[in-house]
Amino acid sequence: MTNTPQTPAQTPVEFEARLRQIGADLYHDKHPFHIRLHSGGCSMDQVRAWVVNRYYYQTRIPMKDAAFMSRVSDPNLRRIWRSRIEDHDGTAEGEGGIARWLKLARAVGLDPDYVSSEVGIMPATRFAVDAYVRFVRDEPLLPAVASSLTEMFAPQIHRDRIAGLMKHYDFATLEATTYFRQRLNEAPKDVAFGLQWVLDHALTQADQDAAARALVFKTQVLWAQLDALWSAYVEPGHIPPGAWQPADGLLP
Amino acid sequence: MTNTPQTPAQTPVEFEARLRQIGADLYHDKHPFHIRLHSGGCSMDQVRAWVVNRYYYQTRIPMKDAAFMSRVSDPNLRRIWRSRIEDHDGTAEGEGGIARWLKLARAVGLDPDYVSSEVGIMPATRFAVDAYVRFVRDEPLLPAVASSLTEMFAPQIHRDRIAGLMKHYDFATLEATTYFRQRLNEAPKDVAFGLQWVLDHALTQADQDAAARALVFKTQVLWAQLDALWSAYVEPGHIPPGAWQPADGLLP
Repeated sequence: MTNTPQTPAQTPVEFEARLRQIGADLYHDKHPFHIRLHSGGCSMDQVRAWVVNRYYYQTRIPMKDAAFMSRVSDPNLRRIWRSRIEDHDGTAEGEGGIARWLKLARAVGLDPDYVSSEVGIMPATRFAVDAYVRFVRDEPLLPAVASSLTEMFAPQIHRDRIAGLMKHYDFATLEATTYFRQRLNEAPKDVAFGLQWVLDHALTQADQDAAARALVFKTQVLWAQLDALWSAYVEPGHIPPGAWQPADGLLP
Repeated sequence: MTNTPQTPAQTPVEFEARLRQIGADLYHDKHPFHIRLHSGGCSMDQVRAWVVNRYYYQTRIPMKDAAFMSRVSDPNLRRIWRSRIEDHDGTAEGEGGIARWLKLARAVGLDPDYVSSEVGIMPATRFAVDAYVRFVRDEPLLPAVASSLTEMFAPQIHRDRIAGLMKHYDFATLEATTYFRQRLNEAPKDVAFGLQWVLDHALTQADQDAAARALVFKTQVLWAQLDALWSAYVEPGHIPPGAWQPADGLLP
């Protein structure tokens, strides 16, 4: 079989393997900060810095999903995608993934009001996360969907995180880690749909390349957030002006 | 009391009256096309042209609402706004406002698949509707919310339309007009929330002016769609190239 622009460069099976290899090579489960976090090597201040900054990512995910829906003219695709926003925002105040993240904040001794005020988030965190929202708002639908496929690699990191946190940290109760447990229930349906959609729509080599680039980009969005945490709160420990300082925003 | 930038130019009661006056002056219930439609003066082809073109507006409303949500960082505001998308897209295939509009299409003899293909929609319809989606995506949140307040004036036009259509047209059964009946249930909650939000947030003269301009803009979006229908399908009857022609897309 020769490659022409009309034939797929890779079969769906080959292309899925290519996408999964991106996760094996680049997903942030291999970042030193996560290794340190899951093995109990992070100080409580380092855990708190992660909780404060990661909150920004949590809050922007439903905004990213709404930006995607704003470009989808098919009511069926919009309806399926809407469940992602429901997962994060919940159906009543105090429900949903963002509220569950604030339970984790409370468990590590942070005032949820401080965390949700978004004060203290590092500019580097905002830049990375905002780049993701803009990507999904501006790029074609195929890369926009493909960029969500880091969810393929999330269940393992959530399982490692639950086990690692509960083994090494007193704060890590069932209640504190409910966010990650719930994502183990939610993510598989999103992955199953998103992956199939990408496999169905990436039929040319150009489209497969664009989808793969989008997934690489997304791994960079996640990795850059951990680099910034390491730089500010591990070594060299240069906390940027205005960013969270240990003792800021603690519960009384 | 003197006006300074810190004091409201109008009290909330005065400002609400100003917004309502915009509806009294500019809402499309006074457009000759609607008067003709509701009084039984439209031919079936003119009714069909309206159904085909208005479908485009229906489909873009949830995209507009998603664009709004993509800019809202408050999970509570996003959750409240999400119900608008649910109203239009439904919770299962075949439900929701867009599906109900397609019941109207079928009732007037149009193939729902033709209508939902978006073939035959006039460029002038697209330009007006797309301008609305862009407005909500790009303008500050206050004008974005204010632009939705034409819903304040919608219940009366829906009641007039249901009564007018059922009096004058054989197609206008309970089933065919379910879209408008359902909007009578849904719109009041949206209006109550949106109006209060605008009154709460438009506290300076500059903000009140911006909100009022947004509402005027939205009345123009609605009015321009009817001007285009009149020009193409009433008089002079110059149907633009590529737009719906009588006999296109009819059910067998």
